[in-house]
Amino acid sequence: MTAGPIRLSEGAHTALRPATAARITGGFWAARRRVNAEVSIAQGPRRLEEAGNLDNLRAAARAKSPGFTGDFQFQDSDVHKWLEAASWQLADGAAGAAGTAGTVGGELAREVGRLIELVAAAQDTDGYLQTYYQVRPGAQRWSELHWGHELYCAGHLIQAAVAHHRATGGAELLDVAVRFADHIDATFGPGKPVDAVCGHPEIETALVELYRETGERRHLDLAAYFMDRRGQGTLGDGAEDREADRRPGAPYWQDHAPVRDATEVTGHAVRQLYLLAGAADLAAETGDARLREALVRLWEDMAATKAYLTGGVGSRHDLEAFGDAYELPPDRAYAETCAAIASIQFGWRMALLTGEARYSDLIERTLYNGFLSGVSLDGDRWLYVNPLQVREDCTGPHGDQGARRTEWFRCACCPPNVMRLLASLPHYVASGDADGIQLHQYASGSYAAGGGAVRVGTGYPWEGRIAVVVDEVPGDGEWTLSLRVPHWADKYGVTVNGEPVAPRAENGWLRLRRRWRPGETVVLDLPLRPRLTRPDPRVDAVRGCVAIERGPLVYCLEEPDQPDGLRLDRVRLDPAATPTARHRPELLGGVTAITAGALRPRIRPEGWWPYADAKAPGEAGSAGGPGSPAAEPVRVTAIPYYAWANREAGAMRVWIPV
Amino acid sequence: MTAGPIRLSEGAHTALRPATAARITGGFWAARRRVNAEVSIAQGPRRLEEAGNLDNLRAAARAKSPGFTGDFQFQDSDVHKWLEAASWQLADGAAGAAGTAGTVGGELAREVGRLIELVAAAQDTDGYLQTYYQVRPGAQRWSELHWGHELYCAGHLIQAAVAHHRATGGAELLDVAVRFADHIDATFGPGKPVDAVCGHPEIETALVELYRETGERRHLDLAAYFMDRRGQGTLGDGAEDREADRRPGAPYWQDHAPVRDATEVTGHAVRQLYLLAGAADLAAETGDARLREALVRLWEDMAATKAYLTGGVGSRHDLEAFGDAYELPPDRAYAETCAAIASIQFGWRMALLTGEARYSDLIERTLYNGFLSGVSLDGDRWLYVNPLQVREDCTGPHGDQGARRTEWFRCACCPPNVMRLLASLPHYVASGDADGIQLHQYASGSYAAGGGAVRVGTGYPWEGRIAVVVDEVPGDGEWTLSLRVPHWADKYGVTVNGEPVAPRAENGWLRLRRRWRPGETVVLDLPLRPRLTRPDPRVDAVRGCVAIERGPLVYCLEEPDQPDGLRLDRVRLDPAATPTARHRPELLGGVTAITAGALRPRIRPEGWWPYADAKAPGEAGSAGGPGSPAAEPVRVTAIPYYAWANREAGAMRVWIPV
Repeated sequence: MTAGPIRLSEGAHTALRPATAARITGGFWAARRRVNAEVSIAQGPRRLEEAGNLDNLRAAARAKSPGFTGDFQFQDSDVHKWLEAASWQLADGAAGAAGTAGTVGGELAREVGRLIELVAAAQDTDGYLQTYYQVRPGAQRWSELHWGHELYCAGHLIQAAVAHHRATGGAELLDVAVRFADHIDATFGPGKPVDAVCGHPEIETALVELYRETGERRHLDLAAYFMDRRGQGTLGDGAEDREADRRPGAPYWQDHAPVRDATEVTGHAVRQLYLLAGAADLAAETGDARLREALVRLWEDMAATKAYLTGGVGSRHDLEAFGDAYELPPDRAYAETCAAIASIQFGWRMALLTGEARYSDLIERTLYNGFLSGVSLDGDRWLYVNPLQVREDCTGPHGDQGARRTEWFRCACCPPNVMRLLASLPHYVASGDADGIQLHQYASGSYAAGGGAVRVGTGYPWEGRIAVVVDEVPGDGEWTLSLRVPHWADKYGVTVNGEPVAPRAENGWLRLRRRWRPGETVVLDLPLRPRLTRPDPRVDAVRGCVAIERGPLVYCLEEPDQPDGLRLDRVRLDPAATPTARHRPELLGGVTAITAGALRPRIRPEGWWPYADAKAPGEAGSAGGPGSPAAEPVRVTAIPYYAWANREAGAMRVWIPV
Repeated sequence: MTAGPIRLSEGAHTALRPATAARITGGFWAARRRVNAEVSIAQGPRRLEEAGNLDNLRAAARAKSPGFTGDFQFQDSDVHKWLEAASWQLADGAAGAAGTAGTVGGELAREVGRLIELVAAAQDTDGYLQTYYQVRPGAQRWSELHWGHELYCAGHLIQAAVAHHRATGGAELLDVAVRFADHIDATFGPGKPVDAVCGHPEIETALVELYRETGERRHLDLAAYFMDRRGQGTLGDGAEDREADRRPGAPYWQDHAPVRDATEVTGHAVRQLYLLAGAADLAAETGDARLREALVRLWEDMAATKAYLTGGVGSRHDLEAFGDAYELPPDRAYAETCAAIASIQFGWRMALLTGEARYSDLIERTLYNGFLSGVSLDGDRWLYVNPLQVREDCTGPHGDQGARRTEWFRCACCPPNVMRLLASLPHYVASGDADGIQLHQYASGSYAAGGGAVRVGTGYPWEGRIAVVVDEVPGDGEWTLSLRVPHWADKYGVTVNGEPVAPRAENGWLRLRRRWRPGETVVLDLPLRPRLTRPDPRVDAVRGCVAIERGPLVYCLEEPDQPDGLRLDRVRLDPAATPTARHRPELLGGVTAITAGALRPRIRPEGWWPYADAKAPGEAGSAGGPGSPAAEPVRVTAIPYYAWANREAGAMRVWIPV
């Protein structure tokens, strides 16, 4: 039985089903997951102690004098998310994954036990649990649903409990979660004390998963109630709590329209995407066709008009929100790490629901870029926002969260969110159906799904060769091995047992159907030449620019890798010079860097006004008139975007003018 | 004696001095000022009544039960700013300006008297006056200097009082202001109860002007104390009051560095520019060379790297702040109306201080564009933020303040600020020195300065001809008439009494020195051909675009003027087709519109991902492959930017791809 974050019920209406076993044992993601286990997750309890989250639990348990530490109603959710991450990590350790939990497993299990005890002790006798409303003087439960985050915290508690139960079989936390869910069930609903929704979705996806874990229909019904109840303006526009003229408005918490009627993703990005993840869970369990149609429509709106090249979403600093279509500024990109995670969670549910490869295509892009940039290479510093451009003066007084990593945040939603996604990552790699297995991502490891099992070995994303060995096949071996071909892979090669085969991918799936015998091997060769990518012309903010990509990786120019004194605010890529790739084990933990020809314009003395007549010679603020060389050639070096901001703060850019 | 907002002391260290009389009697600005007087200012008391500002004053005067209306500590400042605007308007009426105060003068004077009575009655016996801290339960004066806005409100009260005293000679409000200033003087300073600054600068410029009005040195010293005290981190970073990780930080209120040491404009734009206006006032009165150097440096930083083509400044929605250098997104431009006003106020003080034309060059640009866009053509609807681009879906759930005008704001700083600037506008037109008069702006009217007087007649900005008649000259008539030649005027003609003369402008000043006789006439012809303007290549957000300008006006494409069905998110300007101008009296109150050749690309069916290989044919999301016509020619119509958003909400853009 899988210990992954989704376990569909028997009758679920999905095209695909999660893997029944999944382990990442080597390669790129194993290394990132080792750091996640040994640094990020291992340090979690200390961070939570320092930030006061654990004191809040003790205060609620009356073991310490009352008083609330921290700025936010949702401080508890950091603990819950860490517990979820640690539980998935324990599951991985129990499965014997090399080098990860093995070294930290015993200690980690003790820490998990200790924190679960704190959480359990904090729970009120009626099942309620949110320390902010339990210990903060004057705070009253269910009194400010729009900002209170009570059901949001409950959702994270439930997810942690499900993870812990799946990973260890222990019911200590699950009992806490079920008691709270039952209290919520008794409190919320038509004719019950409260008939309303929470300002921050999350409970929906959690309750569906709780239903899958307990089999109790009431949990699913409660999730459906919250989904149906949203979009009726229950939450108001938040005007009373915020600066006037800055009230978030009903779209902020997706309360302006029911999910089934919504035409575009809008409002706070994490809220929107947690909601849609929950809606996809519901659609999977209920088969609701209108809901499913809305989900496809909303995902397409997000992917086609509101996603950065990195997969990052939610472009606005203001309210951490989705912007208008094509409003995708690289410098002021918000692209919160949590929003990337939420996009992956939503996308994976859509992949299972529909079986379509495009969802995993965007998941791959997001994983390798806009998600992974959220954590430092050494695993203990974080980015909350993930811009695609940082200017030279980023260390000046304007500097904000974008340009530098931080050890922890006062609003620390992102770090434990990264931890739980990396800890459960094996379960985003493969799925199965009656006909076979589908490999959505390429990570060295072993995966069981669709009644069979395969082993994958690859140096991806540095190398394009992916070897898949069939270990087990069901029945007579007539079975389909489906390999996802990323949308950027214009050419690729496939061999079966060394013999080239020539099926073409359809809608992103390369389907190899035959009578398989254990030990047979498929090799997929994806082309990893560096490529230049241009934006849709409606993405105004990066007009006239290209980005460098290679395989699933988006690249960026970062200051430390460039020739001395080259300013990234003036460099121009030479589209005639072919970029070249070279693997550099010494650089940033080992990356394939790309060098490209570029021009360094000479800057003439600056005037006081940065706009000039379009007919004047030269360009405003740039190299001078006729006869003088306008620019000198240089070579610039690009690194994978995920690895930026691991050295001294400096300029960076993904989109480069040509 | 001038009734304008600046009256330098006798020994002030400036290159130029304000006009001693100034009236705008016709043309473009007279029309805008008539609407300002008859609609905007006339409706002010009703708006203030509806918003509760007047009730707050009554509450403080104990004429009504206590209780505070409104969201902000600084609600009183709306009243003060309206009183200042109305006072300047009364001054204008007293001077007999045609068509403005004449029709509303008596009524307006009564309203001013009524509101002054309310303000005076609200003042505490010790001189303190801010209703928020007087009537709001629990609020304590001087207890939260960073957000309290007490000295900010005091500053606006003082400015209103000075305006009223200058305009009418009446001391009712000036007495209130002096009592409050003396209370502040007794409260703030080394060894006094409070040794700190206010989170929002404004008191500094007000106290210098109060010194100029009363001749009391202590007001100037207090201004100098506040200026010197700032930049020492007194205010903290605001962390305790804001969402964590969103604390504004010391640069927000310019408390990170003393003005004399600052290297760039940063933080909240209005705070920054009010502070610099006050610093310029101080430098004028004290001759402080280091302060003056800093002011030049900071103005250059603003103009060269942080100003929109419209003159708008403060690009970030987040914290209403200046962004990094060249961070000038057109769509998410904040460019608050108040920041444009503050820029004009700062710039005018720099123009007087230095005598340099460039300051008035930027003032002109700001006046006609980023400032004037803040008020509707009919004078009763407002923009708080002034974007340079609004996309097609601006009416969707993302829609924010940018795309639509509002009748009033809960944070209503902008409307009365527009009123006071328009009411005092004549005083930004001319200055004088021992040698003659300088015309900084071109508005039909009469101006006395430098010992003489001139009359100006012009159809500017629609027509480029400016006629100046010399009315009076001092002494033997040896005198210099200086005309500012805008930086965009590459060619221009000048005649004196009909005879062409050929002096060239130096640093923006065309200086006509001769022995003048009354009645002599100078005609300046400025070239008003439509021109295409390109940005500095470091302004990433508008790369590959041009803007249409004509004279001082920035133009924009707005949806209602375009061919049916043309989407502004895809249109491209044809740089080969020369734009043509035509005056259209029926359009938007009478504007010169510009038509230009453009291309309407055909859009191919969209995929789910808006980025594509740069080598692929066509462009991502755009018209198709070889052989199919990629675009059809159309003609687009541009209107002056200031006139946008006066019809149904729709798409608009200043910067157009080529």
